Amino acid sequence: MTTTFALRELADFLKAELQGDPESEIRRLNTLQDGGTGDLAFLASNAYRRYLQDTRATAVILSREDAVGFTGNALIHPNPYVAYAKVTALFQPVSGEAAGIHPTAVVDETAIVPASACIGPWAVIESGVQLGEAVIIGAGCFIGANSVIGDNSRLHPHVTVYQGSAIGQRAVVHSGAVLGADGFGFANEGGRWLKIHQLGAVEIGNDVEIGACTTIDRGALGNTVIGSGVIIDNLVQIAHNVRVGDGSAIAGCVGIAGSTVVGKHCVLAGGVGLVGHIELCDGVTVTACSMVTSSIATPGVYSSGTPFDDNRQWKKNAIRFGQLDEIYRRLAKLEKQPTK
Amino acid sequence: MTTTFALRELADFLKAELQGDPESEIRRLNTLQDGGTGDLAFLASNAYRRYLQDTRATAVILSREDAVGFTGNALIHPNPYVAYAKVTALFQPVSGEAAGIHPTAVVDETAIVPASACIGPWAVIESGVQLGEAVIIGAGCFIGANSVIGDNSRLHPHVTVYQGSAIGQRAVVHSGAVLGADGFGFANEGGRWLKIHQLGAVEIGNDVEIGACTTIDRGALGNTVIGSGVIIDNLVQIAHNVRVGDGSAIAGCVGIAGSTVVGKHCVLAGGVGLVGHIELCDGVTVTACSMVTSSIATPGVYSSGTPFDDNRQWKKNAIRFGQLDEIYRRLAKLEKQPTK
Amino acid sequence: MTTTFALRELADFLKAELQGDPESEIRRLNTLQDGGTGDLAFLASNAYRRYLQDTRATAVILSREDAVGFTGNALIHPNPYVAYAKVTALFQPVSGEAAGIHPTAVVDETAIVPASACIGPWAVIESGVQLGEAVIIGAGCFIGANSVIGDNSRLHPHVTVYQGSAIGQRAVVHSGAVLGADGFGFANEGGRWLKIHQLGAVEIGNDVEIGACTTIDRGALGNTVIGSGVIIDNLVQIAHNVRVGDGSAIAGCVGIAGSTVVGKHCVLAGGVGLVGHIELCDGVTVTACSMVTSSIATPGVYSSGTPFDDNRQWKKNAIRFGQLDEIYRRLAKLEKQPTK
Repeated sequence: MTTTFALRELADFLKAELQGDPESEIRRLNTLQDGGTGDLAFLASNAYRRYLQDTRATAVILSREDAVGFTGNALIHPNPYVAYAKVTALFQPVSGEAAGIHPTAVVDETAIVPASACIGPWAVIESGVQLGEAVIIGAGCFIGANSVIGDNSRLHPHVTVYQGSAIGQRAVVHSGAVLGADGFGFANEGGRWLKIHQLGAVEIGNDVEIGACTTIDRGALGNTVIGSGVIIDNLVQIAHNVRVGDGSAIAGCVGIAGSTVVGKHCVLAGGVGLVGHIELCDGVTVTACSMVTSSIATPGVYSSGTPFDDNRQWKKNAIRFGQLDEIYRRLAKLEKQPTK
Repeated sequence: MTTTFALRELADFLKAELQGDPESEIRRLNTLQDGGTGDLAFLASNAYRRYLQDTRATAVILSREDAVGFTGNALIHPNPYVAYAKVTALFQPVSGEAAGIHPTAVVDETAIVPASACIGPWAVIESGVQLGEAVIIGAGCFIGANSVIGDNSRLHPHVTVYQGSAIGQRAVVHSGAVLGADGFGFANEGGRWLKIHQLGAVEIGNDVEIGACTTIDRGALGNTVIGSGVIIDNLVQIAHNVRVGDGSAIAGCVGIAGSTVVGKHCVLAGGVGLVGHIELCDGVTVTACSMVTSSIATPGVYSSGTPFDDNRQWKKNAIRFGQLDEIYRRLAKLEKQPTK
Repeated sequence: MTTTFALRELADFLKAELQGDPESEIRRLNTLQDGGTGDLAFLASNAYRRYLQDTRATAVILSREDAVGFTGNALIHPNPYVAYAKVTALFQPVSGEAAGIHPTAVVDETAIVPASACIGPWAVIESGVQLGEAVIIGAGCFIGANSVIGDNSRLHPHVTVYQGSAIGQRAVVHSGAVLGADGFGFANEGGRWLKIHQLGAVEIGNDVEIGACTTIDRGALGNTVIGSGVIIDNLVQIAHNVRVGDGSAIAGCVGIAGSTVVGKHCVLAGGVGLVGHIELCDGVTVTACSMVTSSIATPGVYSSGTPFDDNRQWKKNAIRFGQLDEIYRRLAKLEKQPTK
């Protein structure tokens, strides 16, 4: 499959100002460094500015400021990264999913499946499920009883949705994700763990993306709630009764323990851990691999951990970490000594 | 589906003392804060005591101590959290699984499947598998050759069990879990990784719960062994030849490297990492995101890591971490200086 | 199934020197401690040398040096661990996979499937897929359109391969792994996350092993590339456009953020996190749970984090971490004070 656009078509699509030959043929997106004939590149970060003058890409998306002195074909846009994001939609291979239910799918007769929905091979749709218009259920997905999935949502192959889950419109859920498994709730009775049956559900807003092998547990009593416009990467664990506010972003390998509340427009970088029962206000960013052990009430950027170092040097310092309180006390004692 | 109980029925079930109207109708469990008419709430932590007087829940499970001065309907129980756990079982929706083998399941003729077992659509049961009474195998599960699963165990959809695994009675295994994949064993021969075929298996006791997308590898020579009554959350990695003692609890995103032994009644909080070939004695608790790099012979609570902080402040301190040994030496030098 | 070898057969296979009875029967591999009659053990680490004299194993693989003074049956080999790895292949149960397409598999008519390939129940092979000779596709695997899998590769049950992925020869991919899901790419337009469609693919070399529930995302523009001979454990997240050099080893729970480059023969221990857009040169080892936040240009061993400690002691030191910069300044001030 080849998609070809005239540069002017892309300028129209992006509402961008066109510089150069409007009939240049664009067949692919590429980086400034690797771009060649037929490629549209973009400049969205100063780090890549050095590649601009020598790029062999047919055209470049850039800001008015960066366009100064650039004589090649260009699409001038106030936010080149947003423009690039928008144009990727045009170059995405058309997914071959035709509407209809694959003959091998097992669909309960009480499930509501519009004619515009697409259900892949080996999918299982249990009783009382409601699918919206144009929903795509990939091969081998399991949709538990009474779950609801909104219009235009897509579940890639091998997604598991436990009973009673609610997913909004335009969701994208990647393979291996598990929504609505039991939260990790047990009471200890004399050394024995007694299961607390998890009676809540999972509730996911509109325009949410959920990465591969990410797990979002059902609530113990109330629901686990993911707001609208939230984006979640791969291998993320979201425990029971967590609430994530609209527009937040959660990168890979993050773990959020039970009942924690993440505000709106927060960013949790890769590997972050949040303990349970805390609250992050709106607009909190946590840097990679940091652990947050108490609530944060002020927007801003937060971190924990230590910088990496050569192992031998690190060991010397790490040992001293275990003496830090002693170091502090010895320092304080010295300070109290009379000086001349 | 609605389940309704008279409060006296719940008192009988819990062997709790009833205060108030024995005929009050309970239709749901809820929290003190959110509870309303028809709801049974519970008070199990001092943090929630402030919600007791104003709760609109029809009845509350609480301790004798907390019942003093409370005039509403109540179930008085020595351990309200345990009572709540027990009562959740009554309010869990009945799973619609009827005994029998779904016509689409592929079951080898040599597999032992009791009439009381339930095998969902698209499940694969290989040769020599033995399922116990009332076992439930969810849609799309794969049970490899010669595996054994004990009575009343339930595998949710999309669980993979490699050949030769043994799972005890009353296990609950959540979707996406993979039991018995090859341990990560390789010998390096001149820069090339040579696979060590993993000849052991996975052996899981009774009353174990295993979370979604958790992986437990088969042993290299002997088995990887999970004791009875162990509870394991989502996205946990348990490497080959690990042994976890009875009654231990492992929260989400924990990683345990090869051949490490975790004692009985240990608690590993979320994100903990244990290196390989170490041993934790019984009764060890490790707090969230801590890394344990050597054996622990004394029961207690252990931690590592640094507290989170505002990013700018954190950076200043983190840089000094790289100078800790130098700081120590400079301090020691100062201390040796004669004072007046 | 029982496999029995005469010790001399194993000596021939390993090109090892035989000491003792060449007709001793070996039926199993085992450790020095647990070995008994019919078992072949090995001594590959000084830590286990104390078990040598009292082992009841029928024979032992050991180095010439360790063989001095050992009078039992032995296979003397320059690298006993490599010899053990090689001999595991002989004792691995024969997998029952016969060539052919299971009648329940859904294979697109345009897919290329050699007669030597084996496709399990409920597998889905989309249009344009090319499978090499003797490829084994486990039950319930999904192979997206136009993906290519090289000769002798094996995908265990429930592996998901998105469209356009390329996997080399002799790959082993464990259950639950997801290759080629969308990278986590979004542009923020006025607080709203705009999806950047991921137009690249995943490209995996020869002789690669990929663990259970590991996720490797497709590239945004170019490809995510895993070199030949790379071994990857369970629950590893490899983001879009990462490149991993030949022969590197990545242990469980590692996360590598977007566009990061890992050199050849690197070793990332369990739980390591690498931030995005950095480069590790060849021959870098990172110890368990360390976070790497900038490029590394010198081969060696690197670490971060703090040692674990008793929780109360740790807390005292951890609080002082938050005062480290202050401690440094106070120390420097003391140093400037005149001494007698």
